[in-house]
Amino acid sequence: MALWLGDLFSTAEGPAQRRDPALRGTERIREDQSHGEGNSVGAIRGPVRKIDLNCDMGESFGVYRIGADEEIMPLITSANIACGFHGGDPQVMRRTVRLAREHGVAVGAHPGYRDLVGFGRRPVRCSPDEVYADVLYQIGALAAFCRAEGVALRHVKPHGALYNTAAADAAIAGAVARAVADFDRSLMLYAPPGSALEQAGLAAGLRVIREGFADRGYAADGTLLPRTHPGAVLHEPERAAAQARGMVCSGTVTADTGEEVAVPAETLCVHGDHPSVIQVLRRIRSELEAAGVSVGAPGAD
Amino acid sequence: MALWLGDLFSTAEGPAQRRDPALRGTERIREDQSHGEGNSVGAIRGPVRKIDLNCDMGESFGVYRIGADEEIMPLITSANIACGFHGGDPQVMRRTVRLAREHGVAVGAHPGYRDLVGFGRRPVRCSPDEVYADVLYQIGALAAFCRAEGVALRHVKPHGALYNTAAADAAIAGAVARAVADFDRSLMLYAPPGSALEQAGLAAGLRVIREGFADRGYAADGTLLPRTHPGAVLHEPERAAAQARGMVCSGTVTADTGEEVAVPAETLCVHGDHPSVIQVLRRIRSELEAAGVSVGAPGAD
Amino acid sequence: MALWLGDLFSTAEGPAQRRDPALRGTERIREDQSHGEGNSVGAIRGPVRKIDLNCDMGESFGVYRIGADEEIMPLITSANIACGFHGGDPQVMRRTVRLAREHGVAVGAHPGYRDLVGFGRRPVRCSPDEVYADVLYQIGALAAFCRAEGVALRHVKPHGALYNTAAADAAIAGAVARAVADFDRSLMLYAPPGSALEQAGLAAGLRVIREGFADRGYAADGTLLPRTHPGAVLHEPERAAAQARGMVCSGTVTADTGEEVAVPAETLCVHGDHPSVIQVLRRIRSELEAAGVSVGAPGAD
Amino acid sequence: MALWLGDLFSTAEGPAQRRDPALRGTERIREDQSHGEGNSVGAIRGPVRKIDLNCDMGESFGVYRIGADEEIMPLITSANIACGFHGGDPQVMRRTVRLAREHGVAVGAHPGYRDLVGFGRRPVRCSPDEVYADVLYQIGALAAFCRAEGVALRHVKPHGALYNTAAADAAIAGAVARAVADFDRSLMLYAPPGSALEQAGLAAGLRVIREGFADRGYAADGTLLPRTHPGAVLHEPERAAAQARGMVCSGTVTADTGEEVAVPAETLCVHGDHPSVIQVLRRIRSELEAAGVSVGAPGAD
Repeated sequence: MALWLGDLFSTAEGPAQRRDPALRGTERIREDQSHGEGNSVGAIRGPVRKIDLNCDMGESFGVYRIGADEEIMPLITSANIACGFHGGDPQVMRRTVRLAREHGVAVGAHPGYRDLVGFGRRPVRCSPDEVYADVLYQIGALAAFCRAEGVALRHVKPHGALYNTAAADAAIAGAVARAVADFDRSLMLYAPPGSALEQAGLAAGLRVIREGFADRGYAADGTLLPRTHPGAVLHEPERAAAQARGMVCSGTVTADTGEEVAVPAETLCVHGDHPSVIQVLRRIRSELEAAGVSVGAPGAD
Repeated sequence: MALWLGDLFSTAEGPAQRRDPALRGTERIREDQSHGEGNSVGAIRGPVRKIDLNCDMGESFGVYRIGADEEIMPLITSANIACGFHGGDPQVMRRTVRLAREHGVAVGAHPGYRDLVGFGRRPVRCSPDEVYADVLYQIGALAAFCRAEGVALRHVKPHGALYNTAAADAAIAGAVARAVADFDRSLMLYAPPGSALEQAGLAAGLRVIREGFADRGYAADGTLLPRTHPGAVLHEPERAAAQARGMVCSGTVTADTGEEVAVPAETLCVHGDHPSVIQVLRRIRSELEAAGVSVGAPGAD
Repeated sequence: MALWLGDLFSTAEGPAQRRDPALRGTERIREDQSHGEGNSVGAIRGPVRKIDLNCDMGESFGVYRIGADEEIMPLITSANIACGFHGGDPQVMRRTVRLAREHGVAVGAHPGYRDLVGFGRRPVRCSPDEVYADVLYQIGALAAFCRAEGVALRHVKPHGALYNTAAADAAIAGAVARAVADFDRSLMLYAPPGSALEQAGLAAGLRVIREGFADRGYAADGTLLPRTHPGAVLHEPERAAAQARGMVCSGTVTADTGEEVAVPAETLCVHGDHPSVIQVLRRIRSELEAAGVSVGAPGAD
Repeated sequence: MALWLGDLFSTAEGPAQRRDPALRGTERIREDQSHGEGNSVGAIRGPVRKIDLNCDMGESFGVYRIGADEEIMPLITSANIACGFHGGDPQVMRRTVRLAREHGVAVGAHPGYRDLVGFGRRPVRCSPDEVYADVLYQIGALAAFCRAEGVALRHVKPHGALYNTAAADAAIAGAVARAVADFDRSLMLYAPPGSALEQAGLAAGLRVIREGFADRGYAADGTLLPRTHPGAVLHEPERAAAQARGMVCSGTVTADTGEEVAVPAETLCVHGDHPSVIQVLRRIRSELEAAGVSVGAPGAD
């Protein structure tokens, strides 16, 4: 079962491109487009020369510590910072925004379902109005810490079950996208390529950053393997780095069935909650460097 | 026992004024001062002609309804909107900001301790850093709804036990004031006259709006009678209106001991949680109108 | 869409009975059966002479009041008391157990999803292990107040979305039933007739009390009309009382399509959250009295 | 400043004993006393031959892990298990009760203030009625897991700020003791010697187990050094073991001022939240063994 049901390329591309998905990897990420008209599709202009590395940060709560934020932050270019509903608390948010600033890492809000005990990983059947208000609340809370610390809020990436639901459910995706746009239309929205969330973001006039997962296995339909599936998580730095290189340089990944599938990505997510994350990040960076790809947050240059 | 230990006038006034506190009522509220240099003391220029009426709003939570917000909103000029920690939830916040906008009521954030079951009325021994982060978080969350609804956020008034603690404790007061100023130095801070919170607000460069309570009894030292004391709450519209008129027109209230004490107020709070609130508000408005006093939010003209 | 997908009578009855569901109403509730071997099906021995009236109680939280518990308690025979996850707090639980004791009302636990802002009405995708632990926790908490007040805990009825999920999902139903049985196999489990929850309760060795809803409309398949459907809630005392009489005296209700469908009920639920609940309860009681039916908690004589 | 204001021996001892506090260590713990008449003072009958080692357990929450429960459990004789308000969740409670059972460790409830983000370490100004209900709720919840797992609930020890408040405040102490006694008068109550909590426990007819802290520094008045004080925590296994031996064998500890003060203890607490806890526990056990003292839960033989 797929976590999101994306018909890749269904949104903005025509049949010709659909027939040759690998071409997607050759498009250049358009950093300079105006945000109000933003969309995730650019003209094909040559190989990708830059990629964003993002990681979920600031998910500790009170005395509870989770994640190796201090070690990870120097290795990434965008931080998705928890906003208190699934993880994070106001003091953790403040610390994490400061940590990102110290390392020049772009800050994004990482809103989730209001489910601390479930870490936002359990779908809660919310109405779109509930999702809209919960997301807007969380973005505003994080934005306050950014403002106090003199840091720009750059993007929003929904967390866990909310990400998966928004990827597949147009009504929830629309609620998320409207909350982002109503707060600030210049914010970027991170979304799986081909997902309902990508479509909703584009419809709301947001710049959508298509996300691939360096350390997660993919199914033949381009969706993530569920975590219960063998091969769902790539713990070995070599495999994750190879997958990252493939997504960046050719726009494809090798599915668990052996097929090459298109996963056009402008940002790569690495999960901070397995012990090898530092090795994975270092290997990805050296692999990309070797391939002539630089790392950097979207729109940051 | 006093809820806050204010040495009235200790902050910003000299000994001469201290000897004649009734004079305080004759100063005009300075609406036009620049916020960065804001303070709550103006030159004495004649009788007050305008007063703000504020009420705590948006304290419902989920299916739980509290307060007659729809009936009260048309009668007040400033709404202190709960931010989810002691009451309020994201959907309630959105509805309440909209309701305030419909009635042209100025919107303020009403942050409290993270204590829903105690409705923020129980002091929680927090560090200043905890208070700073909790207040900043809540202001940001409410500001997001203001932004989405095209409404200006105008002021901050701490709720319940946080208000009382900040009135008496300089470290907590400083944390509240810094959170407000770090978010936006043009926000006004509502505080009891002569309190540690007033001082902290002035020190942080905020415009402080001194608050009197129309429907609460006062002790001879100018502090509120605790709620357990007989006469702590003035349910009768006549008494509340008379007290409001006294605070506005002469800057004094009659304490439970019969003495006249100075309570210089630029805003009057009326509590929404007793059944006679509508009658109280109407009576206050007609009493003030008869005295030639207009009602309006500070800085709103 | 049905809230639970019960194949009525599928659990414990043979084809002959299936052909004549109205016969179900003629069975006598077996009060004297041993709990360890308890099941909800008795021999057909004649018309029902006694019925239980249950209502959800104790759903207030902190300063938030919901429900007219003081007025309702004298009119019902079983109280389902909220346990703090979807509503209720420890002080409310104590007060409500005392109130039930004063009126001789049987006490049951009413565990829900951990979702206060959603009042337990939103399904949360929990694992069976999570549901088991959450239900056991809540039963234990309520049982402590029963113990302190010298009141027997008699039954368990899941709340809201947990009730609906457990009615349809065998794994969740099994988790609920095991939690009840692991706490005390002599507790009764309230469940919709023909539901997965009824089956799980019987499999766990519990006495299951089949529940009908006096004030809710039914579909032709014997399930409740969803709340969004017109006719979902019967506000008129006459209609609710007529439906109650039909369920008790003939074991049937008239569906929204006009058909008679079998709803064999040993307990009738009336919802406390609409204004006419007192009138509904009084009318039901007089209607049942006129029909020679007494009201009383199961097993209470 | 002392965390609790115990006048040691003020409860139950006369002036002669007061003059020679070291004698306290020679009393034998009365394991066989009837609980209804239980008190913590026995006749002086010779050296202590048995001591309880307790540790706070089960304080993880959701995905958040805290404490090395699996490593600690084999080394202690009583586990104080968090009940969900300051830490712990229903699944963690279940696992921890099972873990205690596997190692033959006695189980106690460890209720705290409802303050997850503050881990129950911040005093919340609750009324005695609130404390009573919160403690009863939490005991009941843990007792349910004990019941389901076939484990006896043996004792109650308040957590963190609630422990400290109950040690010093007679009204809060009384609320805690009544909640314990109303649930089950055979439960033991862990309390600092000479504290208001000890007195309240005795007054409620509970058996009180006087607690010393092996790994915390003491002031000359027999109270714990606050955590902000240098020497507040004894991280070195040698020092903690020496202090444990002193408390058990002579009933005294060496205060930070160098004086010997009486701390008569029937149970020794070791904190699980510093990295050397395993070394501390092993060293204490070998030190006590060398002194001819056995370890075991009170009343367990």
